[in-house]
Amino acid sequence: MEVSVIVIGDELLIGQVIDTNSGWIARHLNPLGWSVKSVRVIGDSADEILSAVEDAFNETDIVLTTGGLGPTKDDITKTTLCKYFGGELVLDEATLRNVEEIVAKRHLSMNPLNEAQALVPTSCRVIQNQVGTAPIMWFEKNEKVLVAMPGVPFEMEAMMEREVIPQLLNHFCVNDCIEHRTFIVVGIAESALAIKLDQFEQELPSYIHLAYLPKPGIVRLRLTGTSTDREQINRDMAMLSEKLDNILGNAIVCHEDKSISEIIGDKLKERGLTLATAESCTGGNIAHQITSVAGSSAYFLGSVVSYANEVKTNLLKVPTEVLDSHGAVSEPTVKQMVQGVCELLGVDCAMATSGIAGPGGGTPTKPVGTVWMAVKCGDRIETQCKHFPGSRDRVIDRATTEVQIMLLKMLLE
Amino acid sequence: MEVSVIVIGDELLIGQVIDTNSGWIARHLNPLGWSVKSVRVIGDSADEILSAVEDAFNETDIVLTTGGLGPTKDDITKTTLCKYFGGELVLDEATLRNVEEIVAKRHLSMNPLNEAQALVPTSCRVIQNQVGTAPIMWFEKNEKVLVAMPGVPFEMEAMMEREVIPQLLNHFCVNDCIEHRTFIVVGIAESALAIKLDQFEQELPSYIHLAYLPKPGIVRLRLTGTSTDREQINRDMAMLSEKLDNILGNAIVCHEDKSISEIIGDKLKERGLTLATAESCTGGNIAHQITSVAGSSAYFLGSVVSYANEVKTNLLKVPTEVLDSHGAVSEPTVKQMVQGVCELLGVDCAMATSGIAGPGGGTPTKPVGTVWMAVKCGDRIETQCKHFPGSRDRVIDRATTEVQIMLLKMLLE
Repeated sequence: MEVSVIVIGDELLIGQVIDTNSGWIARHLNPLGWSVKSVRVIGDSADEILSAVEDAFNETDIVLTTGGLGPTKDDITKTTLCKYFGGELVLDEATLRNVEEIVAKRHLSMNPLNEAQALVPTSCRVIQNQVGTAPIMWFEKNEKVLVAMPGVPFEMEAMMEREVIPQLLNHFCVNDCIEHRTFIVVGIAESALAIKLDQFEQELPSYIHLAYLPKPGIVRLRLTGTSTDREQINRDMAMLSEKLDNILGNAIVCHEDKSISEIIGDKLKERGLTLATAESCTGGNIAHQITSVAGSSAYFLGSVVSYANEVKTNLLKVPTEVLDSHGAVSEPTVKQMVQGVCELLGVDCAMATSGIAGPGGGTPTKPVGTVWMAVKCGDRIETQCKHFPGSRDRVIDRATTEVQIMLLKMLLE
Repeated sequence: MEVSVIVIGDELLIGQVIDTNSGWIARHLNPLGWSVKSVRVIGDSADEILSAVEDAFNETDIVLTTGGLGPTKDDITKTTLCKYFGGELVLDEATLRNVEEIVAKRHLSMNPLNEAQALVPTSCRVIQNQVGTAPIMWFEKNEKVLVAMPGVPFEMEAMMEREVIPQLLNHFCVNDCIEHRTFIVVGIAESALAIKLDQFEQELPSYIHLAYLPKPGIVRLRLTGTSTDREQINRDMAMLSEKLDNILGNAIVCHEDKSISEIIGDKLKERGLTLATAESCTGGNIAHQITSVAGSSAYFLGSVVSYANEVKTNLLKVPTEVLDSHGAVSEPTVKQMVQGVCELLGVDCAMATSGIAGPGGGTPTKPVGTVWMAVKCGDRIETQCKHFPGSRDRVIDRATTEVQIMLLKMLLE
């Protein structure tokens, strides 16, 4: 079953907000054997909404829209859909009660704009929004279905899971299943990998497809197959997974779509090791990624973000002489940072970074993007200096990934 | 001038990668007076690419595509565009040299797949990619232009700035300008705000439009106007900005589209104050957001991420008795955390968090989502307990925002 998604909101077209709704929808429909055929991002304009709905219905039998259901004047999805599907806006008592409940829960009082949210087209069936004031609307036309949902990710996600997906499954009967297998590969560039896998790719069953998803330092390989025969697809996937293992060996660090932080967490738990970070230029981002993993408190004890030199000296025991003679962005500094945090927090492993994220602070010998990294794992310490291109965010991001890859490699050896 | 964007890649339609390219393009075209009319996200399928290009050309004279230009078999944008615009793929010597240079810079050796990237349609003009191996292709048809760019954000961004935007400006002559003004409002819910601004909205000049962009705890108000008369638009924007100030007073915490972390940074610099964080459940995310701001080293000294209780006790001096009797997620704990980090790092202001981000670890009295927060600013300490709904990421995110709003309010008093 294929679905078209229409994401509505001027803020998306000026780049002030990034659309995460369509990705969430895809990730939650795929396991049911449904796929997103296309995503249209359009502004809060009646003409654009009407033509996007028309185009989407030409493409698929199910259309999901998000956005433009707020209480303010710039939100016109509801009135526009009422025009498209016919009928008129009327006050729906059940919706009004729902809005009142939600408003009361938020310790606010009702106002005319909240009340207006209870006006719904007579041409739709309302699905009460259990977590927000904008009602979800289910429209049908010529055997096709459009469900209009709020754009606030939290509301869309909660209501998709609780009501919209179950109701869609109930309405349509589907047999197709899509299967994905993801392999995380470290240490081989995308094009070199593609050459290694040339024959593998040529021998793939026609209904299974290989995609390369490169990120700095990492390539995710993804096999995707669509079939009505779930058993065959699972058999073929198992066979292909074994083949890939034979070709790539331990360059495959994980057989699931996990982040580097998750894989590190798995390895630390397996080996009963604890972890800390000492961060200068990454400013807490490594700790943030490590602690984004549920259950990370089992191995992660904490971090010292030593942005100022005094913190490096006082807490991490980087000698003032080292800072004076080599500078904060240097091998001796990160080496002492990683040792210092291991002693301070009493952990087995640690990562440390010190660099110039920019845009200011660069010098001819240490230009913006220079980052020293150190990893300690048991008694071993490894260090590395990299020059990352791009903006401040990008330098922070690259350093955060790179130092984790260093740790992961040490854990795998 | 209006632009259609087509974002190509199966990984986007299964939600494995989030499209940030279209937002970046919009943010960089708007100041030139250009706008993105729509965004289409489609898979690596020749049929879908052909029909999206056809639809986009019906809508606008400029079409920008990103993605599907990699060296691997799943990338078919180049061959498909060659089919659409005619001509054939031929080896381009200049492109080959460029690919060789890029490969050499990365300390890799050439392979057949890299070489294949130098095959380009005879129907296009190549713009050499200075930061990657996939050539950028400029196609023209019936006075309309399509530029195909790589999907890797870093490559697309660098080449848009250096070559594609200047060449588009040169090719098309445009007078329209779009102006935006953004106002960050704290402490008023979206619908209450809309009521306060009802008359203001009714009195807006017809060419200026007000949008509400709510986030938890914050609403961004955005005025947008499109006109050929830059002076008038600037005059009107200044007048409307003053009007908004009169209506909303100090609920407007900033007159630019800045993050809470940036606004905090501005206020700290104004007042010559220093900052630190002591983080348990937010795991370094507050420090990460604070240090994402360029120049934050002027006021941010560092952070202690005290994930384990021993770190709370040893470094932040939270008494074991407090942890034993009240627990780590409690008012006395965060109060001591914020005081402890101020003493440890010698700062004027600090934020502290301790909570249960989930999905595990909840209890009947302290369910998942419970977060205690404390802020110290000079001699004053304020605390707050919140119950945030949603996933682990969401709880971390909400706590990170909420504690920063607490600090910002104290800085504004």
